Amino acid sequence: MDQASLRTLLEAVASGQLSATEALRRLRDLPFEDLGHTKVDHHRALRTGFPEVVFSPGKTSEQICEILASLHAQAPVVIATRADRELYEAVCRQVPEAEYRDPARIIWVGQPVPAPGQVAVVSAGTSDLPVAEEAAVTAEATGITVHRVYDVGVAGLHRLLNYLEVLRDSAAIVVVAGMEGALASVVGGLVDTPVIGVPTSIGYGASFHGLAALLGMLNSCATGVAVVNIDNGFGAGYFAALLAARQTRS
Amino acid sequence: MDQASLRTLLEAVASGQLSATEALRRLRDLPFEDLGHTKVDHHRALRTGFPEVVFSPGKTSEQICEILASLHAQAPVVIATRADRELYEAVCRQVPEAEYRDPARIIWVGQPVPAPGQVAVVSAGTSDLPVAEEAAVTAEATGITVHRVYDVGVAGLHRLLNYLEVLRDSAAIVVVAGMEGALASVVGGLVDTPVIGVPTSIGYGASFHGLAALLGMLNSCATGVAVVNIDNGFGAGYFAALLAARQTRS
Amino acid sequence: MDQASLRTLLEAVASGQLSATEALRRLRDLPFEDLGHTKVDHHRALRTGFPEVVFSPGKTSEQICEILASLHAQAPVVIATRADRELYEAVCRQVPEAEYRDPARIIWVGQPVPAPGQVAVVSAGTSDLPVAEEAAVTAEATGITVHRVYDVGVAGLHRLLNYLEVLRDSAAIVVVAGMEGALASVVGGLVDTPVIGVPTSIGYGASFHGLAALLGMLNSCATGVAVVNIDNGFGAGYFAALLAARQTRS
Amino acid sequence: MDQASLRTLLEAVASGQLSATEALRRLRDLPFEDLGHTKVDHHRALRTGFPEVVFSPGKTSEQICEILASLHAQAPVVIATRADRELYEAVCRQVPEAEYRDPARIIWVGQPVPAPGQVAVVSAGTSDLPVAEEAAVTAEATGITVHRVYDVGVAGLHRLLNYLEVLRDSAAIVVVAGMEGALASVVGGLVDTPVIGVPTSIGYGASFHGLAALLGMLNSCATGVAVVNIDNGFGAGYFAALLAARQTRS
Amino acid sequence: MDQASLRTLLEAVASGQLSATEALRRLRDLPFEDLGHTKVDHHRALRTGFPEVVFSPGKTSEQICEILASLHAQAPVVIATRADRELYEAVCRQVPEAEYRDPARIIWVGQPVPAPGQVAVVSAGTSDLPVAEEAAVTAEATGITVHRVYDVGVAGLHRLLNYLEVLRDSAAIVVVAGMEGALASVVGGLVDTPVIGVPTSIGYGASFHGLAALLGMLNSCATGVAVVNIDNGFGAGYFAALLAARQTRS
Amino acid sequence: MDQASLRTLLEAVASGQLSATEALRRLRDLPFEDLGHTKVDHHRALRTGFPEVVFSPGKTSEQICEILASLHAQAPVVIATRADRELYEAVCRQVPEAEYRDPARIIWVGQPVPAPGQVAVVSAGTSDLPVAEEAAVTAEATGITVHRVYDVGVAGLHRLLNYLEVLRDSAAIVVVAGMEGALASVVGGLVDTPVIGVPTSIGYGASFHGLAALLGMLNSCATGVAVVNIDNGFGAGYFAALLAARQTRS
Amino acid sequence: MDQASLRTLLEAVASGQLSATEALRRLRDLPFEDLGHTKVDHHRALRTGFPEVVFSPGKTSEQICEILASLHAQAPVVIATRADRELYEAVCRQVPEAEYRDPARIIWVGQPVPAPGQVAVVSAGTSDLPVAEEAAVTAEATGITVHRVYDVGVAGLHRLLNYLEVLRDSAAIVVVAGMEGALASVVGGLVDTPVIGVPTSIGYGASFHGLAALLGMLNSCATGVAVVNIDNGFGAGYFAALLAARQTRS
Amino acid sequence: MDQASLRTLLEAVASGQLSATEALRRLRDLPFEDLGHTKVDHHRALRTGFPEVVFSPGKTSEQICEILASLHAQAPVVIATRADRELYEAVCRQVPEAEYRDPARIIWVGQPVPAPGQVAVVSAGTSDLPVAEEAAVTAEATGITVHRVYDVGVAGLHRLLNYLEVLRDSAAIVVVAGMEGALASVVGGLVDTPVIGVPTSIGYGASFHGLAALLGMLNSCATGVAVVNIDNGFGAGYFAALLAARQTRS
Repeated sequence: MDQASLRTLLEAVASGQLSATEALRRLRDLPFEDLGHTKVDHHRALRTGFPEVVFSPGKTSEQICEILASLHAQAPVVIATRADRELYEAVCRQVPEAEYRDPARIIWVGQPVPAPGQVAVVSAGTSDLPVAEEAAVTAEATGITVHRVYDVGVAGLHRLLNYLEVLRDSAAIVVVAGMEGALASVVGGLVDTPVIGVPTSIGYGASFHGLAALLGMLNSCATGVAVVNIDNGFGAGYFAALLAARQTRS
Repeated sequence: MDQASLRTLLEAVASGQLSATEALRRLRDLPFEDLGHTKVDHHRALRTGFPEVVFSPGKTSEQICEILASLHAQAPVVIATRADRELYEAVCRQVPEAEYRDPARIIWVGQPVPAPGQVAVVSAGTSDLPVAEEAAVTAEATGITVHRVYDVGVAGLHRLLNYLEVLRDSAAIVVVAGMEGALASVVGGLVDTPVIGVPTSIGYGASFHGLAALLGMLNSCATGVAVVNIDNGFGAGYFAALLAARQTRS
Repeated sequence: MDQASLRTLLEAVASGQLSATEALRRLRDLPFEDLGHTKVDHHRALRTGFPEVVFSPGKTSEQICEILASLHAQAPVVIATRADRELYEAVCRQVPEAEYRDPARIIWVGQPVPAPGQVAVVSAGTSDLPVAEEAAVTAEATGITVHRVYDVGVAGLHRLLNYLEVLRDSAAIVVVAGMEGALASVVGGLVDTPVIGVPTSIGYGASFHGLAALLGMLNSCATGVAVVNIDNGFGAGYFAALLAARQTRS
Repeated sequence: MDQASLRTLLEAVASGQLSATEALRRLRDLPFEDLGHTKVDHHRALRTGFPEVVFSPGKTSEQICEILASLHAQAPVVIATRADRELYEAVCRQVPEAEYRDPARIIWVGQPVPAPGQVAVVSAGTSDLPVAEEAAVTAEATGITVHRVYDVGVAGLHRLLNYLEVLRDSAAIVVVAGMEGALASVVGGLVDTPVIGVPTSIGYGASFHGLAALLGMLNSCATGVAVVNIDNGFGAGYFAALLAARQTRS
Repeated sequence: MDQASLRTLLEAVASGQLSATEALRRLRDLPFEDLGHTKVDHHRALRTGFPEVVFSPGKTSEQICEILASLHAQAPVVIATRADRELYEAVCRQVPEAEYRDPARIIWVGQPVPAPGQVAVVSAGTSDLPVAEEAAVTAEATGITVHRVYDVGVAGLHRLLNYLEVLRDSAAIVVVAGMEGALASVVGGLVDTPVIGVPTSIGYGASFHGLAALLGMLNSCATGVAVVNIDNGFGAGYFAALLAARQTRS
Repeated sequence: MDQASLRTLLEAVASGQLSATEALRRLRDLPFEDLGHTKVDHHRALRTGFPEVVFSPGKTSEQICEILASLHAQAPVVIATRADRELYEAVCRQVPEAEYRDPARIIWVGQPVPAPGQVAVVSAGTSDLPVAEEAAVTAEATGITVHRVYDVGVAGLHRLLNYLEVLRDSAAIVVVAGMEGALASVVGGLVDTPVIGVPTSIGYGASFHGLAALLGMLNSCATGVAVVNIDNGFGAGYFAALLAARQTRS
Repeated sequence: MDQASLRTLLEAVASGQLSATEALRRLRDLPFEDLGHTKVDHHRALRTGFPEVVFSPGKTSEQICEILASLHAQAPVVIATRADRELYEAVCRQVPEAEYRDPARIIWVGQPVPAPGQVAVVSAGTSDLPVAEEAAVTAEATGITVHRVYDVGVAGLHRLLNYLEVLRDSAAIVVVAGMEGALASVVGGLVDTPVIGVPTSIGYGASFHGLAALLGMLNSCATGVAVVNIDNGFGAGYFAALLAARQTRS
Repeated sequence: MDQASLRTLLEAVASGQLSATEALRRLRDLPFEDLGHTKVDHHRALRTGFPEVVFSPGKTSEQICEILASLHAQAPVVIATRADRELYEAVCRQVPEAEYRDPARIIWVGQPVPAPGQVAVVSAGTSDLPVAEEAAVTAEATGITVHRVYDVGVAGLHRLLNYLEVLRDSAAIVVVAGMEGALASVVGGLVDTPVIGVPTSIGYGASFHGLAALLGMLNSCATGVAVVNIDNGFGAGYFAALLAARQTRS
């Protein structure tokens, strides 16, 4: 609630159009809509086609069905992340239109409103696929176009070079890599496009569950690289879609 | 070097316009310009007004003067980061037009080409200032407008709320915080603008030289937050300016 | 055993009321009751209504039944923490009046003596519930009133604000948070009430099993925040109840 | 600003007593006073005698003098923590009544309003003194009584036992320990009083700058123990004073 | 092989009693008996009654049976540590006289030669029992007397005090503790007897699989405390028995 | 593609032997063969007898069968590492000539071309065997001779000494050790042969999943020791075989 | 104070030989003498010739002089550890008989009572000398004989072997090593004597200030090895002297 | 001492040429020459031209001069690593022919015997120079040829490609990198030559003093990469020279 709206509200009270009680009720709810909570997201969802998102772990299938139904009334697409197939099957009984995006581990309900803009998701190895797909499917849920450039680790750098045009034309590039945290630096050095690195917990030994990839990405010498949490495909896909939406919006 | 240029080159050889020897020389140099190295940066600098940047540690003042001079021929602004005042004074004797941006610890040569777009730099406490200023001055060197929103930690949250409009109108927000890593989450929850978190090494005890702030930012529940290395004000300022340039470019 | 009691004892020996042998026996046992061991807890339990507590892991169901029975003779409530349902069912066969508090993972025997005072338990997400409930049920076992304010992470901050009165009127607030360790700082900044933070091991990637939340809470800039071990709902609930008991006692 | 005040404000607008513009100005400032920022602290300071506190690192002596002067107009005592003697001497030139509390590293201005209640500060070794004194002086600045029980490590446990009465009669006990993190557990096991542990960075080798003491205190088996950041004497002293104030207030 | 034996050997060659070839064979094998390998252990076992020990993990039951049989020919007792019951049952089919020491997880074959000397094993909680028993059974296998002083954590310190005489009369005290790493310091402060601390991986949260207890024990301020690896009950039991054997030997 | 080949290619275009289009196609593929990707490996495999290697985790048995078949057409031996027996059995149905090398966890197809040169693989304990065998089988797949020197920990040093000749005659020594990270230093001190250390995740407690062994090997005072990732038997075997191939090649 | 003494005391009260007041005074002091505090050390010092020890850091030279004087009245030798030369010179002005043991960084006052028994101190490199000497001088202060076996790292193992007899005849061996944590294992494998490992913070890179050596020693496969804190030469020397005293005492 | 020498010795005893006493003396010394100590290094140095090396830290300039003089009698080159200029100047007064290799921090005495073979030293940034030079100068001291390929980080990859021939023709490549740990992977992917990675402690923030680079190199997906300790330029240079010596020797 910006100051203009506040002034309008207060003038409505001053003019008698609005009772103090009703204004009080609105003030209790509204000011906090400026603080970034759910309702604001609602409005944004309706306006921009951005999906509502449910983080599944720790919720029962009943809770998830209820939330999906409630949110789907307001957003074209609703997704539930970190969902295993068992959860999907339980959800499916009550929300038959739900789809399961494997290996992204995402339950998907609805049809996105196509939006301009594109992002690329680059991944190093076969085992990084679930995280890469979580990023890709999340971005797709906003209606934008997603280019997948998979399996382009150090040993396949030439294939990456074949995609230079796609990388340059994207609003953002999500780079998903576990053992080869170096990939984010390399992509960041190749093109002028913002890179969002996602270290993955794939690897063994001194990869320490993604710590090596995380540190590697954070210490990247290439400019134009920022990083999200280990395995946080969702966060990276969302961040990339946000950049795409803002570029095409302006 | 894209495929179109390659074809042109080869056709020039085929038609006899270019000797094999000369084509060989060009191929040895050019293909790697696709790989993100200095020369490409040159072109980008000339085209976009983005500054050339020198990382000072480990270089002598002679080396830095030489690099600054060489680069300044091609870019409107050249900056040297992580420079202490002593280094500046040594540089100043040979490059009298050099300025010292304190407390950003940046040596600055030249005049940026004004560019559309704006970013915000938000910081928590007085002691985060050097890193915040490194981000702000870096972004300013690209010619865009930078809004500084400083000293808005948990205890000054209301002042942050006074800047909501500025935050919303920015292409990106850099959030610099040491002890209060939470600030990136809070800003990320307030507005729809991409947030780049910079954990700082300020703090004591279990802050572990920025590790606590880094982990806090990475685990942020707010979407739209990505992170750069501890104390990497330059990287965050550059990333933010990149977003501003791309939004206004499209 | 304070010095007054010691003098009394010695005078009883001097006057012949007490044999040296009997005094010796008392001295062997008693002085250490000052050192904070079980018997003192017994007395405290009888006097204050505080529950006896059994930490279940590593104990057989037989041992737990025996301890529960023995303790219940002296305390109105006895609880066994970190108990899974299987253990509960084994206990139930011998102690039929035992109840299972799910998802707190607490076996509960008895009826607390109602006590004045109240505390609040605040939690961020659905997945922090078991730890939050461990804190809440532990505090309830002392007979005080517990207000649960759940699911108020960054995205639901406005709901937290609806509970300001409850938070202010509590003797202490337990804040349970995993991915959002920032919540303890935020609550600590909102009210003047002592906050006990409980980092949880919920989260993934760089949450490092609660380490990120722990460090975040320890580095909180808000004053009036102290922290217990990761996932230690019991310790926080006990500490909060202790504050409530002392406030109302004085 | 609670709902009652809000209603009063709105009714003043509705009745014409207050213009919408003025109400707007108040609403912009006031609602956030509920969020725990400085102004609220002002009021609390005036009401409760709690001191205003400045964290010195990263501030110039000019800034500190200005803040001290401004705050001292509203609070009986103002303190600046983590101040070295050099800073004190600079401050002293402009604020002659400033005192230096050594080894607490605190600059102190003013005279506290005596308040009921007492806390104890217990420390293990000579080298933990600066942190212990930071806690003690902070608590004293609120006007309450502070009992110092120093140099009572494992090798001096008997002296600790001589202070059992003091420990029991305190509203809270701050336990400051570096190499001997165990001391918090031991004190927590001796008495029924809430214990706030402050691990210190004193020690060498595998103390890892306070990490060993921190982990030891967090894993304490004694109930009634909570922990603040390594070396955070201020936070512990404040927390303890808060408990004392609340006990005597009720 | 000491110098005396070497001289004897060389003199046998010089006198022709031994061929150079045979001496060569002996020298290839023998000199390394000075380096602490198995054969020397054989001799020591025969001489001192110390057991032969097999570390089970990674070995098949066939291998273990073979080793047990081979070793038992030379040592009165042979034990296999870290053995689960399943392994024991497989071993039992081929070595029927094998016994299973639960919860020490030790397979035991033979009858120790009673030896003078005694050690104490002290443990904090029920869950530390397997490690404590591993220490105790290992020491018993050398024929000495082992006093178990279990369940004497902070909350049961008075019971520990009842055993002061036993602790003083022991050649060494093994202290096994997970959450209460402080116990080693406390015991080390009580008596003049060498203490060998065994941190255990019991605990949760910030115990970090025994790291907290390990660091706590290493930073113990009590003199006369040394530490072995987390959960290394065997190593501590062996070290303690070694001290007992050496004290009584001299 | 070296400069000579490039010149040949360009001269073929200049002379009209090759169309610009065809040259373009070749340049798109070939230049990157200099960057170390698969195709170059093909050529190397054909030329040197080095095996093609598939890292199994994260790949389906169908994918692995396809890759094995495709690669086996070009290389005498193809191996798939980190394969469990279940995967082997699935592969076996489609590639009946596949063998399973247990405990190396390697699926092996083909017959290596015998090559001169030898390496040694030294391991400390029974439980290090899978990693040691991964190194040994990898090296064998290149056709060279591998000497296994197993079970030579500190307690069996004399057996190691019996193999001094083998160690000296090897082109490289792989030392595999978990709890005994010291073994790499010891071997490095014994002979003049390059040592490649492989820390393993075997061990417990403060071995921290191989970290202790890794750090121990990195801090080795013996010269001539380098280290690969924890449990990376493949990398060490490959590195050793590379040294053998280069020595015999020159 | 054992039970026999307690009975004697109580009987003295019962018989009127001792007033209740006097008994009270004794009981207040004495029982805690069983808890391991200073006074007990006094008695032990007088009886066994063990030195009184002052840990210098954090104490002023005045405090140290006072303590040295007070303690020297009761113990033949008093030492102050971790003392730099500057502190020594300050102390020397008031305690002229004080000596400085360099490089052990120990201030030494008095003359030890010669005692039977010997220990060995083994160190790896020149830079471990200060810690090794701290151990040696500490042990010497108890009057026993100390054999120094220095500079016997991996590269000087043969010199170590020349001292096998000395190592075997010692009651304990202190092994001090930084980069070569392996040395403790190697010595532990050579002889049957208890080994106390002291990891030092010497080294660089991945030695992580002694962590590598600490972990290496804890994971030693040799039995008969226990470890003290990084750089804790004093603790190791004391532990070793304790073993020597107990062996010769029995 | 190999078996042939042993047999010769024994036969000399058997034939009376050698007394048992003299043989005993030789056996005490000689067998351990097989264990990798100094004397063997002497012989190797004389034979192969490999330098004698002194690690300077912790040694006085007197000690270093003495060692240099003693060693130089037997080896063509002697170097002292980690020496600052001040140490060099002290040494220079006694050993005037000593040279100082800056920025390698190496004191160098003598003239290497030219040897066949070459290695390459590759480094990323200006600040990695001291470590890179330590590697290069160490290798040069063995008489082989060293190619320096400096300043070829991600931003200068094309320059690296200009050196492909040099890299391929080297017996080994040392890759020195701090912030860009990825460089070792990239070089390892480019050529078939063994790569020895040296992580450096250069960098800031989450580089954690070289830990990020170390982990990055260990997790390299490129085969043919092994790693030495952080900043251990000497170890890498020595390892590389060893490979060169062995290749050309065979």
